[in-house]
Amino acid sequence: MSDKTVTLINVFTVEPERQLQVVELLTRATEESVRNAPGFISARLHRSLDGTKVTMYAQWRSDEDYQAMRKDPAPLPYLTQVLEIAKFEPGTYEIVQSFFPPGTDA
Amino acid sequence: MSDKTVTLINVFTVEPERQLQVVELLTRATEESVRNAPGFISARLHRSLDGTKVTMYAQWRSDEDYQAMRKDPAPLPYLTQVLEIAKFEPGTYEIVQSFFPPGTDA
Repeated sequence: MSDKTVTLINVFTVEPERQLQVVELLTRATEESVRNAPGFISARLHRSLDGTKVTMYAQWRSDEDYQAMRKDPAPLPYLTQVLEIAKFEPGTYEIVQSFFPPGTDA
Repeated sequence: MSDKTVTLINVFTVEPERQLQVVELLTRATEESVRNAPGFISARLHRSLDGTKVTMYAQWRSDEDYQAMRKDPAPLPYLTQVLEIAKFEPGTYEIVQSFFPPGTDA
């Protein structure tokens, strides 16, 4: 990954009975729209075992690419529905370091 | 990854002037101790570009393996220091789905 690569870690907090709904809305937004955007590298969607969180972990070629996608109106209907039922805590990161078990990273 | 694999996404919120300190403490805890624990698969440490967050993203063979590591006293001195300067928001997850750009995941 280049120096400009960014990692988005977006945490959605939700009532457990709404967790599946958030998963479905974020899946549709990503499948139909977000993954087509220039600079999208990959993403993983996670559900917390306690039911209270849904977290998207995504890599983008640059923060500029991510911000450009955020201006695209196509995924907005899904994201608006998500924000009606979930609290959104965004984060834009760079990777500091990766760790592996001893003997596997030499 | 097996059905029991869990993803830990632990978000530490911190004053920007303390972000590097949290990165260093979590790096030492993981290098010297956590990565040696049974069931540790891999981890990535991230710093937010705005300076206010440090997030560890880690995969473990099972939640039982992760909980057993949490009982190990070896990383505690580092983690105690982290919790003195950062707010800790833990999360234990399963991966729901992975996404790639069109044409790369067929």
